[in-house]
Amino acid sequence: MTTISTSTLASAGKSGLVVSAHSADFVWRAGGAIAAHVERGFRMKVVCLSFGERGESAKLWRKGADMTVEKVKTARRDEAQRAADILGCEIEFFDLSDYPLRVSDEAMFRLVDVYRELQPAFVLSHSTKDPYNFDHPLAMHVAQEARIIAQAEGHKPGEKVVGAPAVLAFEPHQTEQCEWIPNTFLDITPVWERKLKAIECMAGQEHLWEYYTRVALQRGVQAKRNVGITSIRDIKYAEGFMRMTPTVCEELS
Amino acid sequence: MTTISTSTLASAGKSGLVVSAHSADFVWRAGGAIAAHVERGFRMKVVCLSFGERGESAKLWRKGADMTVEKVKTARRDEAQRAADILGCEIEFFDLSDYPLRVSDEAMFRLVDVYRELQPAFVLSHSTKDPYNFDHPLAMHVAQEARIIAQAEGHKPGEKVVGAPAVLAFEPHQTEQCEWIPNTFLDITPVWERKLKAIECMAGQEHLWEYYTRVALQRGVQAKRNVGITSIRDIKYAEGFMRMTPTVCEELS
Amino acid sequence: MTTISTSTLASAGKSGLVVSAHSADFVWRAGGAIAAHVERGFRMKVVCLSFGERGESAKLWRKGADMTVEKVKTARRDEAQRAADILGCEIEFFDLSDYPLRVSDEAMFRLVDVYRELQPAFVLSHSTKDPYNFDHPLAMHVAQEARIIAQAEGHKPGEKVVGAPAVLAFEPHQTEQCEWIPNTFLDITPVWERKLKAIECMAGQEHLWEYYTRVALQRGVQAKRNVGITSIRDIKYAEGFMRMTPTVCEELS
Amino acid sequence: MTTISTSTLASAGKSGLVVSAHSADFVWRAGGAIAAHVERGFRMKVVCLSFGERGESAKLWRKGADMTVEKVKTARRDEAQRAADILGCEIEFFDLSDYPLRVSDEAMFRLVDVYRELQPAFVLSHSTKDPYNFDHPLAMHVAQEARIIAQAEGHKPGEKVVGAPAVLAFEPHQTEQCEWIPNTFLDITPVWERKLKAIECMAGQEHLWEYYTRVALQRGVQAKRNVGITSIRDIKYAEGFMRMTPTVCEELS
Amino acid sequence: MTTISTSTLASAGKSGLVVSAHSADFVWRAGGAIAAHVERGFRMKVVCLSFGERGESAKLWRKGADMTVEKVKTARRDEAQRAADILGCEIEFFDLSDYPLRVSDEAMFRLVDVYRELQPAFVLSHSTKDPYNFDHPLAMHVAQEARIIAQAEGHKPGEKVVGAPAVLAFEPHQTEQCEWIPNTFLDITPVWERKLKAIECMAGQEHLWEYYTRVALQRGVQAKRNVGITSIRDIKYAEGFMRMTPTVCEELS
Amino acid sequence: MTTISTSTLASAGKSGLVVSAHSADFVWRAGGAIAAHVERGFRMKVVCLSFGERGESAKLWRKGADMTVEKVKTARRDEAQRAADILGCEIEFFDLSDYPLRVSDEAMFRLVDVYRELQPAFVLSHSTKDPYNFDHPLAMHVAQEARIIAQAEGHKPGEKVVGAPAVLAFEPHQTEQCEWIPNTFLDITPVWERKLKAIECMAGQEHLWEYYTRVALQRGVQAKRNVGITSIRDIKYAEGFMRMTPTVCEELS
Repeated sequence: MTTISTSTLASAGKSGLVVSAHSADFVWRAGGAIAAHVERGFRMKVVCLSFGERGESAKLWRKGADMTVEKVKTARRDEAQRAADILGCEIEFFDLSDYPLRVSDEAMFRLVDVYRELQPAFVLSHSTKDPYNFDHPLAMHVAQEARIIAQAEGHKPGEKVVGAPAVLAFEPHQTEQCEWIPNTFLDITPVWERKLKAIECMAGQEHLWEYYTRVALQRGVQAKRNVGITSIRDIKYAEGFMRMTPTVCEELS
Repeated sequence: MTTISTSTLASAGKSGLVVSAHSADFVWRAGGAIAAHVERGFRMKVVCLSFGERGESAKLWRKGADMTVEKVKTARRDEAQRAADILGCEIEFFDLSDYPLRVSDEAMFRLVDVYRELQPAFVLSHSTKDPYNFDHPLAMHVAQEARIIAQAEGHKPGEKVVGAPAVLAFEPHQTEQCEWIPNTFLDITPVWERKLKAIECMAGQEHLWEYYTRVALQRGVQAKRNVGITSIRDIKYAEGFMRMTPTVCEELS
Repeated sequence: MTTISTSTLASAGKSGLVVSAHSADFVWRAGGAIAAHVERGFRMKVVCLSFGERGESAKLWRKGADMTVEKVKTARRDEAQRAADILGCEIEFFDLSDYPLRVSDEAMFRLVDVYRELQPAFVLSHSTKDPYNFDHPLAMHVAQEARIIAQAEGHKPGEKVVGAPAVLAFEPHQTEQCEWIPNTFLDITPVWERKLKAIECMAGQEHLWEYYTRVALQRGVQAKRNVGITSIRDIKYAEGFMRMTPTVCEELS
Repeated sequence: MTTISTSTLASAGKSGLVVSAHSADFVWRAGGAIAAHVERGFRMKVVCLSFGERGESAKLWRKGADMTVEKVKTARRDEAQRAADILGCEIEFFDLSDYPLRVSDEAMFRLVDVYRELQPAFVLSHSTKDPYNFDHPLAMHVAQEARIIAQAEGHKPGEKVVGAPAVLAFEPHQTEQCEWIPNTFLDITPVWERKLKAIECMAGQEHLWEYYTRVALQRGVQAKRNVGITSIRDIKYAEGFMRMTPTVCEELS
Repeated sequence: MTTISTSTLASAGKSGLVVSAHSADFVWRAGGAIAAHVERGFRMKVVCLSFGERGESAKLWRKGADMTVEKVKTARRDEAQRAADILGCEIEFFDLSDYPLRVSDEAMFRLVDVYRELQPAFVLSHSTKDPYNFDHPLAMHVAQEARIIAQAEGHKPGEKVVGAPAVLAFEPHQTEQCEWIPNTFLDITPVWERKLKAIECMAGQEHLWEYYTRVALQRGVQAKRNVGITSIRDIKYAEGFMRMTPTVCEELS
Repeated sequence: MTTISTSTLASAGKSGLVVSAHSADFVWRAGGAIAAHVERGFRMKVVCLSFGERGESAKLWRKGADMTVEKVKTARRDEAQRAADILGCEIEFFDLSDYPLRVSDEAMFRLVDVYRELQPAFVLSHSTKDPYNFDHPLAMHVAQEARIIAQAEGHKPGEKVVGAPAVLAFEPHQTEQCEWIPNTFLDITPVWERKLKAIECMAGQEHLWEYYTRVALQRGVQAKRNVGITSIRDIKYAEGFMRMTPTVCEELS
């Protein structure tokens, strides 16, 4: 499919945005997409709404009674920064707290500013439903609402508005329960080693390393099946996405 | 989005298949897509399962008591052939009768042969639900089942199987009632005049000419909105499609 | 709501059609609607596709080893005829067998003839899904397909085609499992006694008499709630329907 | 269909309420319904939650650097007031800001007061989902929550509670993406000229005039199709609605 | 089905939690489940988020002009306490007001504390959708969010976290409109008399006594049908539930 | 959850039925369930509707030009029989052909006979939707229709009818596309080695061995998460199922 670019910066470099509820989500779920687009020359930026300090840091909390929220946040920030460096992307921490994540209008407008400055061709975030984690759909909701406001000429008039960046949901943990249906597969075979290194930065969640390796292999099989067994291309690892916005194109194949 | 080709004929020319329940459906609903892909060098082929002689030829039947099924079929075939010539595609008539359309396994295997010979990169057919016209979802069902069988090595062993052609549903008449959601818009502005000429071959359904011109304009507005208002590209006419199969790609924007 | 009539016989009497998979379904599920419309001057006609002789006649089969299919069918026909007489409607038996119900094109065309002769303003049949009884959705499917063909000028050209009779699904047994959502409630309080008498004709299914009385009471409460508690009208018994076709009206209240 | 009135004011005049997120929405989407009901003697009232000053006033903002929010709001208020005058309805502005719209409990209770004073037979608002505009579903949510509270005897005890006004969603911009399915069509042919005049008050959105004329024509074709081609009534323009609440009626046709 | 216990207290007694938006909901909708589990040795606890003083106390408000919110709340508290005593469960009142119910983070954390202290094997609350009552889905939302936070090691580190208590939605008023599908039926025949006594504590809603008796009878018929007519067990009364969380088991029958 | 048995043979041994479209499906998708229930004393029986000779035997067909349908069927039968022996279940081959599978009423009645003879407590088959393989949903459809007929007293009167065996859909290949949502997880850790041996009988589909090992590991992680991390039970491998029929139980936890 030859898609008509939705970017407003067709002549210059393209960019992409990832809105991550907790500071490790972008690695497990979109690390391959980030690395692959960096290789293609995209400027990629991650916004972490929280550090996941309460809900996704069990191993750190079990280290002992002298553990504090600040220590957990520092450890999580370091892991996420290292992973971002490996993937080659920028990262910005909003530090909004998790379990529960709450996003004020002020924080939402800060995300609008990121959209306006970055002018992304696409944005990745969580599934719109997740009965196991309410922080996740809230992150997607905010990513969508900030996108809408970034398009409005009446918000901070005079600033350059954004076009219509594609919105895609990356893979949640229990996909079927989240009504997440992957309609887009990205071949991440060429950047798999880099994604794995980024994954290995997540020292506090070592039990998930093999889990997400298997996810990448299964999605690789599925991607290959959807290209057709007679294709000469060899896909081993893939990431799945649920594209939420329509595609405008010049060719349907 | 740079999509990984699903065609098995990457080096040679690509092709596309349209499965039309009645002999005029392909014009109203996919005429722009056919013309646009012909311009891009695709070999495009339409299979008309019936002539729509009972259900979609009211004007012909009102011509008088001496009208017969054979006369209606002949008139419909001529119109469809002329439209196909204008669009630049091949056309094959299965003549299976309509209202109700019934498809034997023999007819379905004939469609499998078309798949094998054509090796299409994509196939277009009706929406999977249509409470106003049961011939339409049946056509899509057959298009999908024939595709599956065309992929099987055990069907006519030794023949070249097909890869994984993308399946897209073109626009039905009452979209919301048909649970048809357009996730793909094709810019048909450059070929609109040709589509309109093909539409005007349908002498028996003149009341639909303006109707489908308005459809193209409305989808054009929607396509433009999804590219972003800041885009320099000007889309006036578009066709909408519901892509049923996942896309495998190298870039998400 | 003041609805624009869909009947083609606006000046003459209106009529309604009920397509019942088994010979008792129309009584439990639409007996109130039949009686209420008869009172309003409608010509009401029921088509029973089968007698329900295998699947819904357990009590008769338990009467002893000398019971035969013919005896069961005769008993079921008698019950249904008596119920129809009480409700004031015509009834026609297609005798297609049940469990499983299978409908040939010939039988479907016979139903088309009924549509053409009756020219109904609305048609009632089963829900489109029923995981507990596949005969039911098939009856609705046939009711819809026959309606579509009855509208086609090319079917038996010269005959008077039908307009766009409203299609409504009456209440199935396990509503939520059948994805049946009642969007229309008919007040049957004035004809309840007649419906109850018709129900009591079903000697073979006595255990359902109280069951369907409770159904009518519960739907009555729900109808009343949707009219508003301040309404002066008193609804005690109601039937629920899922309207499948859009309404065209001159007033929205 | 002869519907049982849900109004508590059966003997006096009926009324209807429209809850509009931005100050132009009621014109594009429900202007025909407003004019048609005014002609039938209804008292019609529009509540505009915001002026759409940020998100739907692009043309005004492009007029120059000295444009201010207050100037935009004044211009929008004038346009809306003129449109309301043409349609013959009352209008009240809540001035809650848009992009994003936020509705405090205080504002919601103000809407409850409107319900109690107006005692509407039906209320029109936006679709419950709209991925392109989060202000829209919020407006419907508030319209529904205020309706529920207006029904409660414990809210401002002693005041006259409302009955069960029908709730309908008017047409959103990208209907299929919004999961909006029109189950009710209102013939607006007799009032089309008035709606068009109201539309032409929206000087800032001139590009939408032809767009919504085409919408009205397409819905007119669809309405006509659902009445039946043999109907003598001629429908040219229509508005579609998704009725959210069940109908209670005395006749099903 | 032999289910693997989700309780963390396998050797000690099990417990269950009911989160009720208003102070009578737990009686109508889960009174049988509460009584049945108490009989099986469970510790059962109800949390009433509000007294339903505004929205579900019409009869009390009609007693006269000197009725006050405080008087209504006291009456409702007494009724609920008596019902809880009859059912054999604990009850805690959060007194958050209703119509509309609003739940602060502080109140939500209080519910987290209840989870941590109770360590329930399952939690019952309202359906996730209810267009007639927005307090109900909010109660379920809070029940789910509090459960998620109670599972997080970073919330009040050092406290015992909860396991994965099953989440089930009890029966709403208009089930089909609420998209509530009962996939679990509990036989409450042995405790029916106790549930009825608890129901009769609700002096202010006497019109619902017979209504909910019929609900229990209808669900009893449905439960029996799903066990199979040849079963020797006799079920007369049942409650239906929609299980939201997956079951982990050792046997599928 | 302590479930009320749906079996009619409560005092004797229980049994379970698996309806497999092709001769290997039961191994990949339900091999663990079969082995686990055999260990618990169930009589387990598999019905293979076809050998999958055309659609799922690519490796065999690639062996050379002298391969025939009969040879493929023999090889597939041998593999399936060996796998059944390892799992400890009975197996019966209907040999109905695949790609496309077509099931005559005669074949369906043969399956009814199996139900009547086996009196299963539960039946496992494919998902009700599968856009990649139309044989699969047809197998489930037949499994459900045969179950319904086996319950009817009027089918072969005098025979023992079946009760209400639970219906569960085992895991399809692309779960999200098939709208398959696992609501039931079976711990197969104790029988994993046996399932793996059965898998290794499928010499023609060696590429799937690792694939399905990963499936079992991922479902194991998910099952463990739904039991709760504090559970002492260790689940490593699991199978997921979508239970289609309601459960009737005495306890909700």
